[in-house]
Amino acid sequence: MSTTPQVGIVMGSDSDWPVMRAASEALGEFGVPVEVDVVSAHRMPTEMIDYGRQAAGRGLRVIIAGAGGAAHLPGMLASVTPLPVIGVPVPLKYLDGMDSLLSIVQMPAGVPVATVSIGGARNAGLLAARILASGAGDEAAALRERMEAFQEELGKAAHAKGENLRAQL
Amino acid sequence: MSTTPQVGIVMGSDSDWPVMRAASEALGEFGVPVEVDVVSAHRMPTEMIDYGRQAAGRGLRVIIAGAGGAAHLPGMLASVTPLPVIGVPVPLKYLDGMDSLLSIVQMPAGVPVATVSIGGARNAGLLAARILASGAGDEAAALRERMEAFQEELGKAAHAKGENLRAQL
Amino acid sequence: MSTTPQVGIVMGSDSDWPVMRAASEALGEFGVPVEVDVVSAHRMPTEMIDYGRQAAGRGLRVIIAGAGGAAHLPGMLASVTPLPVIGVPVPLKYLDGMDSLLSIVQMPAGVPVATVSIGGARNAGLLAARILASGAGDEAAALRERMEAFQEELGKAAHAKGENLRAQL
Amino acid sequence: MSTTPQVGIVMGSDSDWPVMRAASEALGEFGVPVEVDVVSAHRMPTEMIDYGRQAAGRGLRVIIAGAGGAAHLPGMLASVTPLPVIGVPVPLKYLDGMDSLLSIVQMPAGVPVATVSIGGARNAGLLAARILASGAGDEAAALRERMEAFQEELGKAAHAKGENLRAQL
Amino acid sequence: MSTTPQVGIVMGSDSDWPVMRAASEALGEFGVPVEVDVVSAHRMPTEMIDYGRQAAGRGLRVIIAGAGGAAHLPGMLASVTPLPVIGVPVPLKYLDGMDSLLSIVQMPAGVPVATVSIGGARNAGLLAARILASGAGDEAAALRERMEAFQEELGKAAHAKGENLRAQL
Amino acid sequence: MSTTPQVGIVMGSDSDWPVMRAASEALGEFGVPVEVDVVSAHRMPTEMIDYGRQAAGRGLRVIIAGAGGAAHLPGMLASVTPLPVIGVPVPLKYLDGMDSLLSIVQMPAGVPVATVSIGGARNAGLLAARILASGAGDEAAALRERMEAFQEELGKAAHAKGENLRAQL
Amino acid sequence: MSTTPQVGIVMGSDSDWPVMRAASEALGEFGVPVEVDVVSAHRMPTEMIDYGRQAAGRGLRVIIAGAGGAAHLPGMLASVTPLPVIGVPVPLKYLDGMDSLLSIVQMPAGVPVATVSIGGARNAGLLAARILASGAGDEAAALRERMEAFQEELGKAAHAKGENLRAQL
Amino acid sequence: MSTTPQVGIVMGSDSDWPVMRAASEALGEFGVPVEVDVVSAHRMPTEMIDYGRQAAGRGLRVIIAGAGGAAHLPGMLASVTPLPVIGVPVPLKYLDGMDSLLSIVQMPAGVPVATVSIGGARNAGLLAARILASGAGDEAAALRERMEAFQEELGKAAHAKGENLRAQL
Repeated sequence: MSTTPQVGIVMGSDSDWPVMRAASEALGEFGVPVEVDVVSAHRMPTEMIDYGRQAAGRGLRVIIAGAGGAAHLPGMLASVTPLPVIGVPVPLKYLDGMDSLLSIVQMPAGVPVATVSIGGARNAGLLAARILASGAGDEAAALRERMEAFQEELGKAAHAKGENLRAQL
Repeated sequence: MSTTPQVGIVMGSDSDWPVMRAASEALGEFGVPVEVDVVSAHRMPTEMIDYGRQAAGRGLRVIIAGAGGAAHLPGMLASVTPLPVIGVPVPLKYLDGMDSLLSIVQMPAGVPVATVSIGGARNAGLLAARILASGAGDEAAALRERMEAFQEELGKAAHAKGENLRAQL
Repeated sequence: MSTTPQVGIVMGSDSDWPVMRAASEALGEFGVPVEVDVVSAHRMPTEMIDYGRQAAGRGLRVIIAGAGGAAHLPGMLASVTPLPVIGVPVPLKYLDGMDSLLSIVQMPAGVPVATVSIGGARNAGLLAARILASGAGDEAAALRERMEAFQEELGKAAHAKGENLRAQL
Repeated sequence: MSTTPQVGIVMGSDSDWPVMRAASEALGEFGVPVEVDVVSAHRMPTEMIDYGRQAAGRGLRVIIAGAGGAAHLPGMLASVTPLPVIGVPVPLKYLDGMDSLLSIVQMPAGVPVATVSIGGARNAGLLAARILASGAGDEAAALRERMEAFQEELGKAAHAKGENLRAQL
Repeated sequence: MSTTPQVGIVMGSDSDWPVMRAASEALGEFGVPVEVDVVSAHRMPTEMIDYGRQAAGRGLRVIIAGAGGAAHLPGMLASVTPLPVIGVPVPLKYLDGMDSLLSIVQMPAGVPVATVSIGGARNAGLLAARILASGAGDEAAALRERMEAFQEELGKAAHAKGENLRAQL
Repeated sequence: MSTTPQVGIVMGSDSDWPVMRAASEALGEFGVPVEVDVVSAHRMPTEMIDYGRQAAGRGLRVIIAGAGGAAHLPGMLASVTPLPVIGVPVPLKYLDGMDSLLSIVQMPAGVPVATVSIGGARNAGLLAARILASGAGDEAAALRERMEAFQEELGKAAHAKGENLRAQL
Repeated sequence: MSTTPQVGIVMGSDSDWPVMRAASEALGEFGVPVEVDVVSAHRMPTEMIDYGRQAAGRGLRVIIAGAGGAAHLPGMLASVTPLPVIGVPVPLKYLDGMDSLLSIVQMPAGVPVATVSIGGARNAGLLAARILASGAGDEAAALRERMEAFQEELGKAAHAKGENLRAQL
Repeated sequence: MSTTPQVGIVMGSDSDWPVMRAASEALGEFGVPVEVDVVSAHRMPTEMIDYGRQAAGRGLRVIIAGAGGAAHLPGMLASVTPLPVIGVPVPLKYLDGMDSLLSIVQMPAGVPVATVSIGGARNAGLLAARILASGAGDEAAALRERMEAFQEELGKAAHAKGENLRAQL
């Protein structure tokens, strides 16, 4: 896999980074090159539109966008790119992220956003990996194998936790 | 007052018109010239950005934007205009407009949207009239007088309802 | 594009079909061959697990799963396939689909589900098309072009609605 | 009562144990032998299905399952066992367990889960004891007597709290 | 199985019967004799307390209680009987049964109620059958077999729905 | 005013006392004698019923009942006394008292509970004082005067806060 | 009992009357004279303040106020009268009265409103009757007796419903 | 711009000041003179009504009102002034400000409140500045220019955050 970023991870503010870094880390575990940036729908709308419009042409294949409150970034990017856009509802100080979730997931017909759980940036990364792995070609096939191995590891880790728990009792 | 539109009333889809027309009607009662259009954040993002950027220059003084679900239109317009933007949460088939409300009202610091009640387009129109009436100059003063007369009428109408009710009993 | 199904559209009960058919129709507009089935997590768990396990091997590249209430189907399928799984929260008689949404979107770290809006099956289909279009190869490139054309049409249709509305006033 | 476990207490992750141990403790107070394990619906689906399928044959009579977020474990177990399954909504970092509650309680017709309060693992244990006590035979009768004594103790403890409170004033 | 009622199905008002009859019907399918009554926590508290206190002695083994709004019946019965009590949240005119659900499920430690879904009376009946089937003795074993057959039928019916759906397309 | 308690302040557990003491303190400020006790609907149902039945005969004129979660105490007391019952929703660890509020306020027609805000025990005390002050006779008149003086003090205190704030700026 | 109104039943608009008339009817059953009026906090604030200020002096002993949405009437009246104020959350077109409920019940310390259920005007009337019945003097005692008889009737009616239901089966 | 206050910032209690000061600070950045006061709807209703009635005559052009819980201040002021009133939902100890939001935003037709986000006092200040900037005359034009410059700064600051983030990686 080349080092050209395949996934763009963007967020409305650097205060979202503590949540969003898990997306980057997950993709790092799968060897997927990413780029990370602050792209605010409300504070830099022109650059945001440009980011979305140019994403496919620059070689990105998936966009992950995190935002909180009236979270418009994922949906706005989805309106200007043909790429799949994954939205991460970032919880803010009040409402536990319910506002972020509804602002991201309740998109009108025509412009989908693939929404993950509140604060679920790790799953956003894993979903991007699944998307990359679903395509044609050897790289996708290799990535799909890694995903299957990862899923097997999840099972083993959970199994081990059960053993530890039983051992404690 | 000239016939140049002073308030732009926009909505994400013409299906929002049955809700949004009340904003237009309210402003008509106050003699405020308006323009009405469909401007979709998600389906025509470039035109939406242009609409917002050009609004002040074209002489608009307030924007009223209605949208439902992941309602991004009011907030996106607010990010590209210095004008006050009033957001109307349009209720969709599910969730009774709670998603629309949160998507509009929970804007990040820096970019305010003046949000009214779910389906509250009439109040959006009245709020625009109050804003126009709050400025300097004779037109504003005349509008403020009309608003005070309107408020007095509200009281009289409510009073009459009470009389009718008491008469029925 | 061959006629081998590329997207599996499954639902917990045939009562979900009136909602879910929009996913099938959207993919039909893009010429993507699909398969449709009832696969209930709770009523036929073994077949459900088998469906998920065999999906990638049978050539499916995306799974769309709709379910309502304690909606376990999308998440359970995601746990047994490396493919991207798109979840459609189907609204039931009570709670307006909020239970369906939370049961689908709030997945634990490790097993993502790409969730769309309540009742948003059309967007699930469009998201699947974007995912297929994001891959390598000519088919993906052709699909991406279609998606861009589709997005342009969305804009034109919205624009036309605005014209109609202005003409009425 | 023999030492063969009569109640299986399972959870999606060992991070649920601080909540779930109260179920084990409550059953310990009633002398009911239990087994405890990590059985993740999403991370070890095959073992989870096997656990449910074999539960009745291994002599278990009730299953208590705790899970959080998109909590699928109780419902999935209920789909593969004829035993009564008690679900404990484990609260996660956001939403105060409302997602867990709805994901567990809103099961479709045909596959019930006996749901207790958010974080209510102690009551899950007590409910299991009531179920065991409701059967035929001497063991059940003895357990029912213990339950009645327990309920009497609850009343005395509450009464004593009232005395203490009145004494403080 | 004798004709002595084994399950008492009670509700706060006869207006709950259209919801609650599904519990009776489900138990009828399993050949479990039931009794049905109106027992209002708020309108006939003494009789309600008596009903709960005498239930076990009269040979009942499970109580199913349905109530709406500030639904106190299931919890109050659970406080005066050692039997397992199953609560059915009956949805009223407003709030879609969310008030009923929380009033039933959020019981304090010490007094569990086995809560099923909003309006989920059929599942309440099936849960009662599972509880009866979990006991010792031949009747329980026979009932457990019926439950397994019932679950198999559920799978077959779901499978047939899938066939029908595929045939339509 | 005699020292016979006029208001009974009861709660489901002594853990509610930190919230409920504000009711007692408010009534103390008005010189209204009160009694305080733990009366659990779920843990001591018989005594709870007796408490309610005997309240009017013992000279109580108002009951204040605080409870959390599936908060059944206020409603159950209201079903066995003709006195006005004031309910205080006590917030528990999860859900911020929304479950307590709905369990108390959503009473069926026939049996009212006068509900105050979540954690609003002080207002429960003040409401009891207003009720006592609304009756015939000199004591009531004296209490009504105290309430008017209290309300005037509220205004003065708020006014002083404004002065302090302005002085700081 | 004289014919001077003892309870003032007011509402923000005559559109609330279909809900609020049940309060009047309930008090009619108890022979309590009432007055009914439209008093809008938002449309006739001065008259609303006057209504509250004069209520006690005019001989009213309880105020029942119904309002919907941002329901300010009960709380504002409570701020200008020492009388007990009962608030009825009137459900509007959206949100099922949850906004009305929170706007009424969540009053700040110092100014209580006795809130009943959403749409619960009948209970507001019954609560007013209980308040009137809680006072000193013969009229109150007579009213208390009527309330006890009413409660007995409630029990008998519920009992009869049970008989009817059992007879149908 | 003269030093006569143009915006009145009021709140129900000085405990709201830590939230509300951000409104004052924002307007200070724009050189808009403000006045700040405690004006409680519930504790000083007469002064509150007077404040609203006199606001326009005293030269105020916008009112910002913050309140929590059953937040009646913004709506009551809006009922007695023709000026635009901006409401800030102040979050209290429970419910994360959802009660405050609904009590402020869900105003009846006729009396609008321009509602901002929960705790969003800074945006209330910025919205007031936009309103002042929307009027006729040189002062408004100058303010509009400042707002445009401010919006440009927002974009630059967000851009810089992106640079910093990229530099860290």
